Amino acid sequence: MFQPARGTRDTMPEEMIRQQFVINIIKRIYEKYGFDPLDTPAFEDWALLSAKQGGGEEIKQEIYYFKDKSERELGLRFDLTVPLARVFVNNPQLPLPFKRYQIAKVWRYDKPGANRWREFWQADIDVVGSESIEAEAECLKAICEIFYELGFSDFSIRINNRKTVEAFVKSVDVKDYVDVFRSVDKMDKIGEDGVRKELEGKGVEEDKIKKILEFIKIRNIEDARKFVSEGLDELETITSLLKDYGKNISVDMSLVRGLEYYTGPVFEVTLGEGLPSVGGGGRYDNLTESVGGKKIPATGISLGVDRIVSVMGERGMFNFGKTVCNVFVIAVNEKVKSSVIDVTEKIRKNGIAAEFDLMNRSLSKQLDYASSRGIPYVIVIGDKELQSGKAKVRDMKTGEEKDISLNELEEIKKIIGQL
Amino acid sequence: MFQPARGTRDTMPEEMIRQQFVINIIKRIYEKYGFDPLDTPAFEDWALLSAKQGGGEEIKQEIYYFKDKSERELGLRFDLTVPLARVFVNNPQLPLPFKRYQIAKVWRYDKPGANRWREFWQADIDVVGSESIEAEAECLKAICEIFYELGFSDFSIRINNRKTVEAFVKSVDVKDYVDVFRSVDKMDKIGEDGVRKELEGKGVEEDKIKKILEFIKIRNIEDARKFVSEGLDELETITSLLKDYGKNISVDMSLVRGLEYYTGPVFEVTLGEGLPSVGGGGRYDNLTESVGGKKIPATGISLGVDRIVSVMGERGMFNFGKTVCNVFVIAVNEKVKSSVIDVTEKIRKNGIAAEFDLMNRSLSKQLDYASSRGIPYVIVIGDKELQSGKAKVRDMKTGEEKDISLNELEEIKKIIGQL
Repeated sequence: MFQPARGTRDTMPEEMIRQQFVINIIKRIYEKYGFDPLDTPAFEDWALLSAKQGGGEEIKQEIYYFKDKSERELGLRFDLTVPLARVFVNNPQLPLPFKRYQIAKVWRYDKPGANRWREFWQADIDVVGSESIEAEAECLKAICEIFYELGFSDFSIRINNRKTVEAFVKSVDVKDYVDVFRSVDKMDKIGEDGVRKELEGKGVEEDKIKKILEFIKIRNIEDARKFVSEGLDELETITSLLKDYGKNISVDMSLVRGLEYYTGPVFEVTLGEGLPSVGGGGRYDNLTESVGGKKIPATGISLGVDRIVSVMGERGMFNFGKTVCNVFVIAVNEKVKSSVIDVTEKIRKNGIAAEFDLMNRSLSKQLDYASSRGIPYVIVIGDKELQSGKAKVRDMKTGEEKDISLNELEEIKKIIGQL
Repeated sequence: MFQPARGTRDTMPEEMIRQQFVINIIKRIYEKYGFDPLDTPAFEDWALLSAKQGGGEEIKQEIYYFKDKSERELGLRFDLTVPLARVFVNNPQLPLPFKRYQIAKVWRYDKPGANRWREFWQADIDVVGSESIEAEAECLKAICEIFYELGFSDFSIRINNRKTVEAFVKSVDVKDYVDVFRSVDKMDKIGEDGVRKELEGKGVEEDKIKKILEFIKIRNIEDARKFVSEGLDELETITSLLKDYGKNISVDMSLVRGLEYYTGPVFEVTLGEGLPSVGGGGRYDNLTESVGGKKIPATGISLGVDRIVSVMGERGMFNFGKTVCNVFVIAVNEKVKSSVIDVTEKIRKNGIAAEFDLMNRSLSKQLDYASSRGIPYVIVIGDKELQSGKAKVRDMKTGEEKDISLNELEEIKKIIGQL
């Protein structure tokens, strides 16, 4: 039997309803902040995806690579930022700043695991063309509003600045600071001891490791100033612009972010202590240049839709059924079928999702179907109902029934609470 | 400079706004008919996609094929129907009928051309599990409603039945009737003469060709009955169930549909004489069996979103701007910036998309930006406005200005007509 390809999955209706709820909120708020929708192809030129300042070596190992039938080398996109940089370089006529959002799938040939898929949804906003730190603040405000609206109050956005970390690591005088970044970035996953061991393995001297570990424990700007000054004013501006979200924003000197293209402030969103990140981003002022364009400042943030949906599911934050269908109209016998179709259509005309039996089933089997499908309301139509012009709307959960006139089917909206 | 991969394209904001408008209508109406959302991975097992009863040999040549890093053979999906059949086989617990919609991209390595892309959007509905012709009628009604709501009155759904065509071609006594199908299916593209030549080339005798050409010109059920009876009752039931859409539905004996999996009624939607199809579908009762499951009846229809958007664009049927942003709040100088941010946020709190300058630009440059971005309204904020608590909302198209109190920014909804 064929299954979804390894690391991928089907999203069944119940899960889709939840995912669409989350995506709709993200989309609405991104638009409210003035970000315009953009879409790019699922695959891109391999040379673009594997460009040095793109995802870097580690990501490159994770790209699905293929050739088209004319031997063009292609790859499935691993993020939405590298394609955005290409779009921007291709369209020099775009007014600056170019503010766009994109909610779409990306693919990484990563090790599959719990909540770790090879195909997943990202929801990105980016501001291309502005070097102002206000651009970061706008992105982060939109993200905060999204998590509030989704029902999270305990989300946490940690921020840091690549300039700060870079200046610090240089001040410690280690040879390969990018390599040190990479270890520091694993703090969340492997803990302090893990980072220490990695740095030892990389030949960093003990006193330097000590200093690095001390630094990355810093959680406020003043303490960071004792080590380094670069980039801290920017962090101060961001926190001040985001003062309304004070408790959700924190400075964290251990935050680096894996992708190699970041050049300034970086962010990461988590939904609780020890939980994996559900979003992240930062400033990447060199990316357009590295994919063949002019150097244009840019910043942005990406949300991992699947993880948000999954956490909300685990926490019981959804209140949806298994189907979008609201009403099932039951025909007691074949003779009343055309009237049943008629009733169904009238209900639909009121904007309510409705359907009828397509399997020539008995009354009880139709009820079974409505129940197993999770359709919340049924209306039974027989000769009696057609003669009297009155039927009953049954709430399938409570068993409660309410009268409805077949001539006033718009009342259905009131009965099912969708006014 | 990197470009989108050959045959693919970026969808820029203006086009995205149009596409989303179309997709939202399709989605709303599919749901109103009780179809539930489903999503499947972009790629599938190669053996599934290339299964005999899947797309058939011609489609197989068009599939993007690749291997993952563990040498699994995969391909990008070329439609949403074969993946649906797999989902269904994987989930035998699903209540029947399984009614789902899926609006997603598919990929075919076809010859690129005008409105012919290698990556494109399909919007499908299918009813799996019902052999009732009412299932076809439900799908077609949803499609009719979509085209009405999009603003088309001149759309045409041509219907035919594979059973009818098959019985006819068999009655003519040709050897390879599938091959005859394939030629007949090109009627639209190559015309009667083209079909004649193809059939001659395939060695079909002249009297048989004459009969075939006579048959495929038939546009009503009675005339078809003179040649054959199979499948015509089904077509009669469909047209009778769709009597409200009489002028939009027509029987056409030349309609075959290329895909090999069809077994019963087939449909094709066009938006005017000689225009390419914007949708099609039909019954495919053997597909689940051919991908390793039980034999389950199924029927459905697929819309080509990109072509619909393109035709609507050509006909001037859209009335949207270039951006989702409604209001640009202009800061006359740096000092008023924090008030400008404040005003912007209050406008957003009313659900209106708003933004402010992120480039430290002068008043006139900010106006230029709002104009080139196509933002319909601006509010200019300077010291005078802050002192008086009153500002002006300027309609960028007409130049008309209206007063607004900075303490009653909810009035913005009235002024920009979004109440």
